Amino acid sequence: MRFGAIEAGGTKFVCGIGNENGVIEERISIPTEMPEKTIPQVIEYFKDKQVAAIGIGSFGPIDIDKNSPTYGHVTTTPKPGWNGYDFLGALKSAFDVPFGWDTDVNAAAYGEAIWGAAKGLKSCVYYTVGTGIGVGVYSQGRLVHGLVHPEGGHVLLRRHPSDSFVGFCPYHNDCFEGLAAGPAIEKRWKVKGSELAKDHEAWELEAYYLGQSIANTILMLSPEKIVLGGGVMKQEQLFPLIRAEVRKNLNGYVSAPQLLDGLDDYIVSPGLGDNAGLAGSLALGVAAYRKEEV
Amino acid sequence: MRFGAIEAGGTKFVCGIGNENGVIEERISIPTEMPEKTIPQVIEYFKDKQVAAIGIGSFGPIDIDKNSPTYGHVTTTPKPGWNGYDFLGALKSAFDVPFGWDTDVNAAAYGEAIWGAAKGLKSCVYYTVGTGIGVGVYSQGRLVHGLVHPEGGHVLLRRHPSDSFVGFCPYHNDCFEGLAAGPAIEKRWKVKGSELAKDHEAWELEAYYLGQSIANTILMLSPEKIVLGGGVMKQEQLFPLIRAEVRKNLNGYVSAPQLLDGLDDYIVSPGLGDNAGLAGSLALGVAAYRKEEV
Repeated sequence: MRFGAIEAGGTKFVCGIGNENGVIEERISIPTEMPEKTIPQVIEYFKDKQVAAIGIGSFGPIDIDKNSPTYGHVTTTPKPGWNGYDFLGALKSAFDVPFGWDTDVNAAAYGEAIWGAAKGLKSCVYYTVGTGIGVGVYSQGRLVHGLVHPEGGHVLLRRHPSDSFVGFCPYHNDCFEGLAAGPAIEKRWKVKGSELAKDHEAWELEAYYLGQSIANTILMLSPEKIVLGGGVMKQEQLFPLIRAEVRKNLNGYVSAPQLLDGLDDYIVSPGLGDNAGLAGSLALGVAAYRKEEV
Repeated sequence: MRFGAIEAGGTKFVCGIGNENGVIEERISIPTEMPEKTIPQVIEYFKDKQVAAIGIGSFGPIDIDKNSPTYGHVTTTPKPGWNGYDFLGALKSAFDVPFGWDTDVNAAAYGEAIWGAAKGLKSCVYYTVGTGIGVGVYSQGRLVHGLVHPEGGHVLLRRHPSDSFVGFCPYHNDCFEGLAAGPAIEKRWKVKGSELAKDHEAWELEAYYLGQSIANTILMLSPEKIVLGGGVMKQEQLFPLIRAEVRKNLNGYVSAPQLLDGLDDYIVSPGLGDNAGLAGSLALGVAAYRKEEV
């Protein structure tokens, strides 16, 4: 049986075909332009693929409330053409199959929980740290929704005492994303993060913010695994620095072996590597086919 | 049918009897002393009550992992006699009925979700602000557990620029609880909170920390209701100040009517009033009887 997956990002759509075990058999990449240009290419790709269901992990914010009249729409994005666009509806009118629909980061969290680093666990939190910061939350065997969906990239954090960068979030200036997403690194140091030395102080600062956010997440949600993906996390020197910050912030308060001696196995890279988002979208499609709540 | 409820707090145990609709018919209060003194009184109270099940909402940290050899124990409390005490085991050896077992704040969150301010919703977050700060999380129709249970009173927050109080948390000094629980107010202003004027600047500071934590919780979990209980929240002037802080912190980013125009109905007092903890424990007992996962 074959399932479709759409990892809908702000710069590109990755569409793929896979099976119910998370194996992705083929994929293409389509640039994210106006929906009238991008979506027909997506439909064209799936046209002859005979998929049993399609899962979508989308950039947001999106409406994931099944009782809402705008369920399936992209909501308040500044991205031209996408504000209020009925993304899910456009796909549904082309394919009469079950659809899974959630945020890109919730999809990645789900993929990691089903087939990745958190396989077999009932909870995990997935962070993507790149152009922005997104957080997907899987808890008690379900993705966390609510009023809308988590937007954990925008939490307020304590500033590092030596950091005078004003932040770049248009809503909150110096929230987590405003201080720690890729563009914050570039604006603060006047050079792309990928060009900074591995021992540049930028990474200590980055770990300070990531470690603070993760410690707060552990205190609020007690997840069984923290998975860190996205372009910035290709800087592998960040992992030990982040773990040290988490250890310092918790200071032994939460008594769990995973946090006391097991942080190397607790704060990890995606088990699915760069496939977390696409495989997670695939998993949403498989779940939709099986009529499973996610 | 009658059910037992135990709200086990650090200073007193409230034991009660109620029905499956959340009506509490009677109750007693027993001081929290050494377990060898307190627990026999609890057992004595329930001895002839013929309850179908008992729910316990306990001070913590506690072990709520059903697969753990120390399930049902109090874990690392500094309270004399309770560190490692098999609380649930002691009750189980006295009564051959199903038991519900969770933290006091998770019990209160559950009570609010089943019978209180969040009735009919799939998610809510309950804060108790008193001697300490505790956070119970109900999400996707379930209480949030994980590695252990949430300890959201200890998250790190941004300091108010005018606040030089060092904090009083023995683990983290100036975490949320260290800056905003009842003892922080008293130590900072050298007088009990209940004796401060309603327009004292203490309340703005208090609202600053509560509003910051709540905004971060909304961003991480997107709950459908925030319920604020505990002794400090008897200061009703805090509510509008807290809502203003939440509004300022979110700055319109999360597009949900409840957050944009509906904060008065979104950040509220417990619907069950001072009964939230006891009724929540009762609800845990009812769920245990029905073999429902909570």
